[in-house]
Amino acid sequence: MTGPLRIGIAGLGTVGAHTARILVEQKKLLAGRCGRSLKLVAVSSRDRRKKRGVDLAGLRWEGDARALAGADDIDVVVETIGGSEGVARQLVEASLKAGKHVVTANKALLAVHGERLFRMAEKHGGSLSFEAAVAGGIPIIRGIREGLSANRISAVYGILNGTCNYILSSMRQTGDDFAEVLKEAQGLGYAEADPSFDVDGIDAGHKISLLAALAFGAAPRFSDVAISGIRSITALDIAYAEELGYRIKLLGIARRKAGGVEQSVEPCLVPAAEPIAAVDGALNAVYVEGDFVGNTLFVGRGAGGGPTASAVVSDIVALARGAFIPALGVPAADLKEMPVADIRERVGSYYLRLIVLDQPGVIAAVSAILRDYKVSLESVLQRGRSPGQPVPVVLTSHETRARDMADAVRKIARLKAVVADPFLMRIETLGG
Amino acid sequence: MTGPLRIGIAGLGTVGAHTARILVEQKKLLAGRCGRSLKLVAVSSRDRRKKRGVDLAGLRWEGDARALAGADDIDVVVETIGGSEGVARQLVEASLKAGKHVVTANKALLAVHGERLFRMAEKHGGSLSFEAAVAGGIPIIRGIREGLSANRISAVYGILNGTCNYILSSMRQTGDDFAEVLKEAQGLGYAEADPSFDVDGIDAGHKISLLAALAFGAAPRFSDVAISGIRSITALDIAYAEELGYRIKLLGIARRKAGGVEQSVEPCLVPAAEPIAAVDGALNAVYVEGDFVGNTLFVGRGAGGGPTASAVVSDIVALARGAFIPALGVPAADLKEMPVADIRERVGSYYLRLIVLDQPGVIAAVSAILRDYKVSLESVLQRGRSPGQPVPVVLTSHETRARDMADAVRKIARLKAVVADPFLMRIETLGG
Repeated sequence: MTGPLRIGIAGLGTVGAHTARILVEQKKLLAGRCGRSLKLVAVSSRDRRKKRGVDLAGLRWEGDARALAGADDIDVVVETIGGSEGVARQLVEASLKAGKHVVTANKALLAVHGERLFRMAEKHGGSLSFEAAVAGGIPIIRGIREGLSANRISAVYGILNGTCNYILSSMRQTGDDFAEVLKEAQGLGYAEADPSFDVDGIDAGHKISLLAALAFGAAPRFSDVAISGIRSITALDIAYAEELGYRIKLLGIARRKAGGVEQSVEPCLVPAAEPIAAVDGALNAVYVEGDFVGNTLFVGRGAGGGPTASAVVSDIVALARGAFIPALGVPAADLKEMPVADIRERVGSYYLRLIVLDQPGVIAAVSAILRDYKVSLESVLQRGRSPGQPVPVVLTSHETRARDMADAVRKIARLKAVVADPFLMRIETLGG
Repeated sequence: MTGPLRIGIAGLGTVGAHTARILVEQKKLLAGRCGRSLKLVAVSSRDRRKKRGVDLAGLRWEGDARALAGADDIDVVVETIGGSEGVARQLVEASLKAGKHVVTANKALLAVHGERLFRMAEKHGGSLSFEAAVAGGIPIIRGIREGLSANRISAVYGILNGTCNYILSSMRQTGDDFAEVLKEAQGLGYAEADPSFDVDGIDAGHKISLLAALAFGAAPRFSDVAISGIRSITALDIAYAEELGYRIKLLGIARRKAGGVEQSVEPCLVPAAEPIAAVDGALNAVYVEGDFVGNTLFVGRGAGGGPTASAVVSDIVALARGAFIPALGVPAADLKEMPVADIRERVGSYYLRLIVLDQPGVIAAVSAILRDYKVSLESVLQRGRSPGQPVPVVLTSHETRARDMADAVRKIARLKAVVADPFLMRIETLGG
């Protein structure tokens, strides 16, 4: 039996504290699985007195997390501080330069600086693991890198932000509008006081850029992700989607096309009969399309201390077992550039919600514009009548080029009878 | 870069042929991921002339698969012959004794002889990998062993037989009875001429015994699995389940209880709103419950050449990467005994379908017996009237002990007005 693997945890928020708990409570179980013990040596956090549900007496406390990078008695530095800059970044860089293994839950850091950090890890003989950075309760990094290693991956997409999924599920269940449900979610602790990171799709953008990098053997490029969030979705959209046989989900999508890779985060309509449509509340889900395996779906908790710490510790266990595999499945030097596919060339079906004055000829005018741009309509719904007043009209299209749809919508928005910004969502038929 | 990993494939049925195809078609991709090449050296099959969708010219052909075990130029023997005895078993044993790595898709072999074979692999310095043996298109073995390695697993269960799931899905869609749908499935190649291995639950039993072994760090014990299949399910049951808000799925279930482990295969009612209820056709799905991660669900194709070969090759890639982890997550010497929990002590809700003569007092008599055994009813459905004639009555219970329910049903079966064998199914609320 090899000596113990010695661990330092930087940041004792809910993920860091749960990581410590697992290392302490599952000590014997983990030693059996690793063939050696996992020894928590030091932790770093500002507040020593806070209750964390685990006995940390006897461990070394560092006031400055960066001290862990230089500690001779630490093999693995766990970074659960968060943020793409500041202490988290400094700690990770210093630890990698010292040849240590780093395990992180920090998607923002990797989405922005990943390429440099993965190279740095390899150069100095350490490693940088990030199972916890995407969909904590779903072992999706290993799932793609190891489980689906025989496949050329053509697409990976899914529900990557629990806050948004909670809000959308709750809107559907209550019939309430976005603002009300957001407020309630903030009260319950499911959404931050400043929710923009989640509801504007940035967090999901970080995650899809990491999944794309892994799936396509390329460096992560967060800046290439086209992002829109869920603020524009109304109770009406939820109800119309339901009536049309769909559910609305915020999806991160990365798909390999002839011209390059499309990366986006956007609210989409998914068929109500698909398993992913039933993924409600704070759950996450990820689809992977491989050339031999077909479609595989993974569902689990997206965040929270337990699931995320479970992912952190799975990375530590892999290190202890000595099973080293490059973080993105290939050596950093072999990472490819990912050409950006023109998202305006995408072909797909669409949901278009308009608020128009209820007067004769409006739908004819809208339809004529769509026809001019070669957009073929599948359905037009206008429920209720209110002559002369604003009413919602919902249209769905057959497959059309994104560019054509966008151009048509721009023209429709200029019609006098169209009294609010049109709202457009993709219908994602899954696998298409 | 290390030298190539040299591979021999025994059996060129659909899985073996697809394995060869992946090794040939993805040669470059796999070499990049492994840091060395994967070299297919020899194959074994009776029929040399059959078209297999891949060019095997230049490879050594062995008429007797067992020759691969003794070949000096082979590091990994892939066994896709199948069956728990005969050539498959002899080949695996001889290969392991020769210190080779064996990758197999053979659940029957491992469910019955696994303990001995895993020990043999370790003793001689080889390994025995079996990702392909359970739910080919779902990387569930790695998912549990590596992805969820931080967790004590309390339960693993799911849809493990694609043929049964296809039949049940098709019964729901068409309203047809079991026999008709089976016949149609046989015509389409989704069911064997002799379907008993699938429809009687044996195949799912093999798989759940392997998942239990992995989840609980124990030797597989197929003989401890309580198995019932899907032959008794009628179109009526499907329709009543739907009305009650459920779908019927054949589930393999392994759950850790205070007294030991419950292992079973049985048709169950699952809530229609759960993602697993939407897992239709030949798809498979596996739920895993861990103490920190919570519930994780994996969905994918259960069988077929591509998905199963994808799993075979993922095991080969792991070997090539040098990432050695014991097959069941712990060394074979550390595998525990799994005490068998008394399945009659299980607590759960039930669906009971009776065929009774439509006459006054029958439901009262049935209810009285259930009351005497402390079974509390949730609903009683009798649709349509047909005085004096046999009619179906469906009852659902609140939580009750399996033993009490079974005793009550035995007594109910003896009532004169009960004119056919009662049919009992568990309602599996998932996570309970």
